[in-house]
Order: sequence, then C-alpha cells, then structure tokens
Amino acid sequence: MAPVLALVGATGAVGTVMIDIINGRETVPWGEIRLIASARSAGKKITVRGEELTVVALSPEAFDGVDIAMFDVPDEISAEWAPIAASRGAVAVDNSGAFRMDDEVPLVVPEVNADKVTSRPKGIIANPNCTTLSMMAALGALHREFELKELVVASYQAVSGAGKEGVDRLYAELEAVAGKGLGVRAGDVREALEAAGLPIADSPFPAALAFNVVPSAGSYKGDGWYSEELKVRNESRKILGIPDLKVSATCVRVPVVTTHSLAVHATFAREVTVEAAHKVFEAQPTVVLVDDPENGVFPTPADVVGGDPTYVGRVRQALDFPNTLDFFVCGDNLRKGAALNTYEIAEQLAPEFS
Amino acid sequence: MAPVLALVGATGAVGTVMIDIINGRETVPWGEIRLIASARSAGKKITVRGEELTVVALSPEAFDGVDIAMFDVPDEISAEWAPIAASRGAVAVDNSGAFRMDDEVPLVVPEVNADKVTSRPKGIIANPNCTTLSMMAALGALHREFELKELVVASYQAVSGAGKEGVDRLYAELEAVAGKGLGVRAGDVREALEAAGLPIADSPFPAALAFNVVPSAGSYKGDGWYSEELKVRNESRKILGIPDLKVSATCVRVPVVTTHSLAVHATFAREVTVEAAHKVFEAQPTVVLVDDPENGVFPTPADVVGGDPTYVGRVRQALDFPNTLDFFVCGDNLRKGAALNTYEIAEQLAPEFS
Repeated sequence: MAPVLALVGATGAVGTVMIDIINGRETVPWGEIRLIASARSAGKKITVRGEELTVVALSPEAFDGVDIAMFDVPDEISAEWAPIAASRGAVAVDNSGAFRMDDEVPLVVPEVNADKVTSRPKGIIANPNCTTLSMMAALGALHREFELKELVVASYQAVSGAGKEGVDRLYAELEAVAGKGLGVRAGDVREALEAAGLPIADSPFPAALAFNVVPSAGSYKGDGWYSEELKVRNESRKILGIPDLKVSATCVRVPVVTTHSLAVHATFAREVTVEAAHKVFEAQPTVVLVDDPENGVFPTPADVVGGDPTYVGRVRQALDFPNTLDFFVCGDNLRKGAALNTYEIAEQLAPEFS
Repeated sequence: MAPVLALVGATGAVGTVMIDIINGRETVPWGEIRLIASARSAGKKITVRGEELTVVALSPEAFDGVDIAMFDVPDEISAEWAPIAASRGAVAVDNSGAFRMDDEVPLVVPEVNADKVTSRPKGIIANPNCTTLSMMAALGALHREFELKELVVASYQAVSGAGKEGVDRLYAELEAVAGKGLGVRAGDVREALEAAGLPIADSPFPAALAFNVVPSAGSYKGDGWYSEELKVRNESRKILGIPDLKVSATCVRVPVVTTHSLAVHATFAREVTVEAAHKVFEAQPTVVLVDDPENGVFPTPADVVGGDPTYVGRVRQALDFPNTLDFFVCGDNLRKGAALNTYEIAEQLAPEFS
C-alpha cells in the first residue's frame, strides 16, 4: 500500500510552500495526503494535486494510519506533538528547532547525509534551520572533496524567515516610507514608521527593516550570541559530521522578502582552486553555479527566489589564507531552506512504507 | 595669516556633506574658503558659515593662494587635478581612489596614523575608501592594543556609495515596487522595474536593489575579485601599517541609503576578551559602543546615519578561533567614510599654514 503522508501546519507560511512543492511534483509516492493544522484552521479546504482536502485539527488521532508526518510548526508545538505522532507509529520529519541538536535525532540534508535517516530511535528526523540549509548543499559538496576545517559566515537573511508576519511587516514599512526621501538622518525611518502607525514595538523585528539591516536573528543566548548564529555553528557541525569544525557566524536581517544569502569564507584541509570548486558545484545536481563576475553575473536573492537549488557565485581563492575559498550563496529559505528539504526527507523515507 | 581652504567638487554628494560639516563646526581655522566645481556648476551660490560663496570653475588659477585643497571628485578628475593643485603650492587631500596606493602618498585616518601626514613628497594626502574607513577607527584602536593579524569582512554597503545617482535609483525602485507584494518569485522585481521604466540597464547597479542585495561593488579586477574588496585589503594594510595583514572581504550592496555596515571577524596576536575590547572602544573618542544584545541594543544604519562616530556592537569572542573577535560596525559613508575624514585631515594640517 502506498504510504500515508501528513502535513502538520498546512496553513502556515512554510506549509503553504510545502503544498506548492507537492503540487509541482511530477509524481508522488503517497496514498493519502492528510492536512493537519490548529483547531482554528480545521475545516478549511485546500486543493492538493487536484483533490480538495479538508484540514483536520491537530489531535493524537489525526496521526492514526500516518506513515510520515511533516511538521512545519513552532518549536513548542513540535516539541509536544512530534513525539505523539511517533508514538502513533509515524516518522516525524520536523522543521522546528525542537529536536535538531538531540543526539537521538538525525539532522538531515539528503544530498549531504542521506544515510543518517535510518537511525531514528525517537521516530523523529530533524530538518536544519533555514540559514544553515541555504549553504549546506554547496558546503557539503566541497567538504567531500576538500575536507572542511573552518567557516566564517555573514548572512543576509530574508524577512520571511520570521514567517508571514515578517513579510507583512516589510511590505507595510516600505509602503510607509517609499517616496519620502528617508534614510538620510538618524531615526527618520523610525519616526516615519511611528507616524504611519507602525512603531518598532509592534514589529517582529527589533529595528526598522526599511532602508536598514539588522544584526540580530533569533533569541539572545548569552556571551553576545543570538540563537541563529549558534544554530549555524552547531547544525553545520552535526550535518557535516565534523564535531570540531571551527565556525563563526554573524546573522543579519535584510529587507529581502524571501531567499537567504551568505558570504562564506571556508578553509579546507586540502588545496582548493576556483576551477576545482567550479567542477564540484557543477557535479552537484542541487547546486547552480552563477559565476561570471567579469560580466556582472552572480546570484542575487530577487533573481533566484522561488527556485529549488542552492545558487553559488563569486567563487574566489582567498588571497592571504591557504586552502580557502570565499563565495556567495543564495537559497530560497522557504523552499530548500524549509519545506523542500523536509519533503525531500519524506520522499527518501517513502519506499520503507510502500 | 589664516590658511586658505579649497573644496573641489563642492556641489557633489560628498561635497554637500562637506559643507554641512564645515557649517556644523564650532570654529574653523580658515581664512578664506573657496568652492570649486565643474564649469557647469560655476556661478552657483552656496552659503558657508553665514557667508554666500560663489562656486568657481576648476582651473589651475583656481588654486592660486590655496593652502589646502580637498578633492571630492571622481578618480580621473583627481588624477589630473590634485597634482596641479600641488604644483600651485596647495596640499591636496584627495578622497578619490587615484592615489591611495601610491607609495609617495600617505593614506590617512587621523585617529589611526595621524603621524603620516607630514611625509607627502607629492603634496598629496589620500583619504581611504568609505568601506575601509567605516571600520578603521574601531580596528585601529583594537590593533594598538592586541596587534591585528587577520581580517575576514562582509559588508552591507549603502547605495550613496555610488553617489546621488545611487540614492535616486533606490528611491525610484522602492516607489515602483512598494505595495505590490513583490520579491516572492524570481524576476518579479526586475519585471516590475522594467514596467515602471526603470530597467536594470539604466541603473548604476548591476541588479535590482529593491527587495535585494547585490554581491558586487566597484569594478571587476580579475580572479573573482571586485575593486572594493581589494581596496579593503590593500588600504587596511597601508593605514594600519601591517603589510602582511591577512584579509578576505566580500562587499555587498544593500537597500540602505547611507551608512555602511560590516560584519568583522578579526584575529589578533594577543588574547582578547569582550571586556577588554569594550574598554578599548570606550577609550576611543570617535567610536560609540552600542552593545547590549540581551536588550536588543546594537547599531543599525538607519539608527545612526548622519552621525560622525563609528558605531560598534555585537562584540563577541569567536567560539572556535583563538584571540578572535566578531563584531558589527556601522559608519556613515558620506561623513567619516568620506567628507569628515578628509576634513579632519585638513584640520590637522591647518596649523602648518597659520
């Protein structure tokens, strides 16, 4: 019998992209697809592959008969409900931060460590955070060839990483400031937002995003670090299987709707050239090389948003650091950075239940 | 007699900020202030410290009697005219890229290497590029205390780095896209700009800036590097007096009007703690520490634009790299990044001519 797939959080920002992805697949291995969301969204109708499905409320019984349950919900909902789904016999593929660093939960990027899915003592597999995921296909491919040792990363993160609320906020801010000649005096953007009924206190972000960049992502974790920066470090180590990988990350929110970008400075154990790196990227089906800087060709978020691959450009040998590449990478944080990677894990699991 | 100051490029983007700075000073050491610009702008009246001055056209004679001539003009104009000013007896303080790496021209940031102004065999002193300058007060202070060895930098550069044309372009782009729900599909921003009569081909930037970041600044210099990235390396080495400083920079344009930001990963010869770094920054009059991440306090460009100091926050010890700090720095690229530093050099020279 074909496996039963459940999608928990079907009506959220990532859930909506997940349904797009399922609808876009040529074929799917699923018998039934079950949409699960909060009681508030239950009863809503959503068309999936030509069939109108009714969203059901989250409950233990909702997982009965489910083989694979994908979770696109906040950490605390996953923390409570992924184990319930697992106890009902489903494999939970969780896109929250609740289980990523749990030793008994594999953290999987299929093109990097697909082999890890089989060992899942808790019946849970975790999907990495979107910032880490945005560079992982590229880094994993380089690591296989050159052995990664050190990573210094600065991010340019899209507002949709903070969900629909983040996107709505950026749109509202830009409408409020456009055409007013702002951004030239300290506080003028902040004042204009207040005047437009958009005080920073009501924003999901701690500062204006219009005409601004904000060096803060996630919650404060002590010693100067925000959670997103520590996730990049800890999740990269776990996914790549390099427990002593040296990592420093600075995570910065920028006024981009969707698609995270990262400036990556990566040092390897072995010699690496631009030519060799290009070959590695070209051989990786989920990486697209966009790298002709002489002709102004490089990836930018607005040019690649909505795509599945990881886009890589600006590849160059660091002038003063041996065995080191600098490059720029863009990945859609809602697709590969969230929904797509989760779905790819589910697809990989499907044959077990067929 | 009080020295005569000339401002070449008085009507440009940086020149305008320069006049603001001169007007904002409590006292100035100048006898005469002479405004010089292209023939097109000659005759224009500009009020400087309560006096209406008439802009004169650039000519060799315009420098007669001038002691210090500040140049805020494109590279090729400086390359031609700074030596002419010098041959007429003025010291040229040049904000272009024409002479920065010339061995016979000092490259000066007063709070870092003020002592270099006295040796100027060509009669020219160069002002660093705005990206390097935006972090130099902070790095110079740290270097004195801990001895800088390595620098990995990613920039978030404002559009005014590309002059008034860059600012006008960002404003026009945002007006064209605001309220349209764009940035969610590859190319939708580009298409909207084309539909609004703003094709990328007409932009000073090689891609959209609205809802985007662009990993390109300056001209292409080979081996994957753009000029701005090489300037950060070469100028940092020269200003700090560390010819073998290891530097990797990735320069990225962001939709911010004015104020460059940089994510800095700096490795020192000696042990460095956050507390020690805070002390160094607090002791540096031109640096303002904005660093209470637990309470969401850090510098952002829109919150500090228009200010003279270098704003530093997010200071933390790298977890895996010895003697290494990560921090985030914001500096107004038109003030300290251009006009202010040039003027500070001129102020430092004034007593020589009094």
